Amino acid sequence: MNVGLFGFGRTGRLVAEEIIKDSECKLKWVVRKSAADNHKNASDFLGFPHKNEGRFFTKDEATEKGFFSEHPVDVIIDFSSPEGIYEYAEAADSGARIVTAISKYGEKELALVKELSGKTAVLHSPNITLGINFLLVVSQILKDIVPQADIEIVEEHFREKREKSGSAMKIASKLGLDPLEHINSIRVGGIVGKHEVVFGLPNQVIRITHETISRAAFGTGAIFAAKKIVTAPPGLYGMEQIMYEEFVKNISVERLV
Amino acid sequence: MNVGLFGFGRTGRLVAEEIIKDSECKLKWVVRKSAADNHKNASDFLGFPHKNEGRFFTKDEATEKGFFSEHPVDVIIDFSSPEGIYEYAEAADSGARIVTAISKYGEKELALVKELSGKTAVLHSPNITLGINFLLVVSQILKDIVPQADIEIVEEHFREKREKSGSAMKIASKLGLDPLEHINSIRVGGIVGKHEVVFGLPNQVIRITHETISRAAFGTGAIFAAKKIVTAPPGLYGMEQIMYEEFVKNISVERLV
Amino acid sequence: MNVGLFGFGRTGRLVAEEIIKDSECKLKWVVRKSAADNHKNASDFLGFPHKNEGRFFTKDEATEKGFFSEHPVDVIIDFSSPEGIYEYAEAADSGARIVTAISKYGEKELALVKELSGKTAVLHSPNITLGINFLLVVSQILKDIVPQADIEIVEEHFREKREKSGSAMKIASKLGLDPLEHINSIRVGGIVGKHEVVFGLPNQVIRITHETISRAAFGTGAIFAAKKIVTAPPGLYGMEQIMYEEFVKNISVERLV
Amino acid sequence: MNVGLFGFGRTGRLVAEEIIKDSECKLKWVVRKSAADNHKNASDFLGFPHKNEGRFFTKDEATEKGFFSEHPVDVIIDFSSPEGIYEYAEAADSGARIVTAISKYGEKELALVKELSGKTAVLHSPNITLGINFLLVVSQILKDIVPQADIEIVEEHFREKREKSGSAMKIASKLGLDPLEHINSIRVGGIVGKHEVVFGLPNQVIRITHETISRAAFGTGAIFAAKKIVTAPPGLYGMEQIMYEEFVKNISVERLV
Repeated sequence: MNVGLFGFGRTGRLVAEEIIKDSECKLKWVVRKSAADNHKNASDFLGFPHKNEGRFFTKDEATEKGFFSEHPVDVIIDFSSPEGIYEYAEAADSGARIVTAISKYGEKELALVKELSGKTAVLHSPNITLGINFLLVVSQILKDIVPQADIEIVEEHFREKREKSGSAMKIASKLGLDPLEHINSIRVGGIVGKHEVVFGLPNQVIRITHETISRAAFGTGAIFAAKKIVTAPPGLYGMEQIMYEEFVKNISVERLV
Repeated sequence: MNVGLFGFGRTGRLVAEEIIKDSECKLKWVVRKSAADNHKNASDFLGFPHKNEGRFFTKDEATEKGFFSEHPVDVIIDFSSPEGIYEYAEAADSGARIVTAISKYGEKELALVKELSGKTAVLHSPNITLGINFLLVVSQILKDIVPQADIEIVEEHFREKREKSGSAMKIASKLGLDPLEHINSIRVGGIVGKHEVVFGLPNQVIRITHETISRAAFGTGAIFAAKKIVTAPPGLYGMEQIMYEEFVKNISVERLV
Repeated sequence: MNVGLFGFGRTGRLVAEEIIKDSECKLKWVVRKSAADNHKNASDFLGFPHKNEGRFFTKDEATEKGFFSEHPVDVIIDFSSPEGIYEYAEAADSGARIVTAISKYGEKELALVKELSGKTAVLHSPNITLGINFLLVVSQILKDIVPQADIEIVEEHFREKREKSGSAMKIASKLGLDPLEHINSIRVGGIVGKHEVVFGLPNQVIRITHETISRAAFGTGAIFAAKKIVTAPPGLYGMEQIMYEEFVKNISVERLV
Repeated sequence: MNVGLFGFGRTGRLVAEEIIKDSECKLKWVVRKSAADNHKNASDFLGFPHKNEGRFFTKDEATEKGFFSEHPVDVIIDFSSPEGIYEYAEAADSGARIVTAISKYGEKELALVKELSGKTAVLHSPNITLGINFLLVVSQILKDIVPQADIEIVEEHFREKREKSGSAMKIASKLGLDPLEHINSIRVGGIVGKHEVVFGLPNQVIRITHETISRAAFGTGAIFAAKKIVTAPPGLYGMEQIMYEEFVKNISVERLV
């Protein structure tokens, strides 16, 4: 699977590293703001000397006509900025699938995401780690099984993150919980990210917990998503939906007692 | 739903209390070893003065011919001893469903369990809490989704419990883990029971945890199981299977994005 | 050590049981509201048939002149109600030490507590478990060692407990934390009580956690306190102070490398 | 405080970064194996463009006579290898204090550590994070307060770490616990490092937990240690001892109720 990456900031670099390390992926190019080291390889930059992956291009180059047919990829992964999508909109025509992890799209960009999904498979998920989406799906199932349970969300992040986590907000919304009342935000030190959904019954407690060790987990999630949609028909997909399908697929009748 | 209970020891009492408190259940009778307070009500004994539930009978009375047609119930719940099953074998003929939480059946008793399941619905589960069975099912699904994850089981119990927990053993077996290597048993003080399945990936960790607050959780599980099989055709059921069906039922296509 | 107990409600019974089980204590009597089974033994009621401990007396009997000289004890432990203290005020004259775990004293009762402490050793602590007081002391020390750490308190209790826990409030006050901002209260199901103090630094997190398995932990704490003050001079003591002294005592120079 | 650093591997770099970021420290030089970028600054390498800190020197340069008088520092911090100590032995004569975090010294090197401690203050600690040493000290105190508690150690690390953690071994040894029985080692995915000491009593559980977010925590610990011994007389110090002294210092009589 040939991959093109938009974005090479703190998270983008970790994502690039994951793509380079994945045996089924090849990082063809990286489009980034900086013109430093242009046309050199991200793999060299990241300490993989003989990989020859992730040739750097500038935004200006990427928006030149013909860039995507000259440098074709199966999937574009976007960890750049809300504006990034304008730069690769054209790629949708050539059939490249799109995985975008951008959280702060405005209405205009969201409309463009939708438009592109008429031409190719587009997965949009700001909460792209496997673990968070596992939490999302399994919490909803558990809520249906024990509707009488009390549910609370606890999320822990580094002190500088002032707002409630987007993942916690999404979990709360899916579970029908008022975020003001049921999301408990712990902000201390340098915690990368931890989410816990607590289900309390009179005589037992179930906790489903996800801890991020490194933001590279976003890369693993994006690759997982890319592999799932690389053969999918045009349409707008979500990470949660992919996780749902994994659940359905892996509950087989043969497993029953 | 009319319920008959075998066993009124430490756990049996807690189970009786849960049945009495459940608005959809009526505890018709309790069969126990002791002849003390015979024909009085378990509900009085347990501090529910006006409930008139759970009339005490001795084992001898229960094994007299005609007991089950004279005192018919929809479901028999068994928290007595491995031998208990001989006392209500006859009840299967009258259509009463059976929920047995006995763990230490010998071969002979297991054969009888199977025989009875030809006549009525029999659920046999030594690990009957909702939470443990949730762990069992969800861990297997997660393992299929992230087969590359390392998995460890941590279980904590009171100091006197010397052997590995049966629930941990079952989880290990279902996940294909060598229990000697992958079950970590903590034995301290008076911990009622805690099980955690840890899934480790390079950049993230997922933990699914079940804590028992009180052994009354066995009662909740038994009632949940009883309600599920009260209308089921003859056959041998497991708690895990019921949990699987709950999973399948609650993953609806409509939930997709 | 001869002990008299005021209060025989849900917690009082568990405390009585702990006193009866402690090999260094003898429960001489229990004063309670109810006149049922008066002059019988709490030990029989609690399932210790041959102990002959904890003779029941009514409040009226306890307030009769001469009760405490006729039924002398070394320590009175109070788990009754804010008004309980009026009933045994006289006992202070006879030298009985007092351990009171009552949390909701009014000003008048607090003044009486202080007055009694002029005559005998009085320990007043609504947060009387060993664990909570360990948290209190160790958190203050850790805060002094790493003043740059961010600190949050997480406390979990059963759904019916609507207000913030008194223990969490005390920890917050001792650590100089605004309780509205830094106490995170989880209310789900039947959790007996859990407190966690989280210290976050840029590269590491320290958590100190206390979980109550059973309210009998109040009994252990009260007995621990009673043993500490049974030989103490008159004065007002706190459980935290006793824990401090334990810390000081157990940091010996010999332990140094 | 002027600091010289030996070692610039994975952990060494993180330590260098912490020293550069600390407002009370100045990283004068870094001695490393590689001759790449020699005489350039570690601060540039690590992305602090205008700091001019941590000039690179090779081992050969460092072992030349006069290096330490030409490039004097207050403290040498060593995260290199067991052999590193031979390279800066001479520095002890000039009064530079030494903090070494090397774990795998042979007998010969341990003898040299001891010899140097006759000339200057030497702190040797392979477990140099603040958190682990906090666990060490507080666990010993708690064990003395509740000698009847059952104690277990749980430690979690990345899958490649096959042996039990050195920190867990030290905690076990200090608490008198057989490491084979009481250390539970979880090895999954990429967990950086987590240690938990569990104290179980019949009715309550106390847990003291330390999680490493990044190996930079070693840097924080080394700096903390360096500041403590920079004015100390010659002698051999341990991190645990320093933590003990912090405990003693911070338990003041004035804090009592």
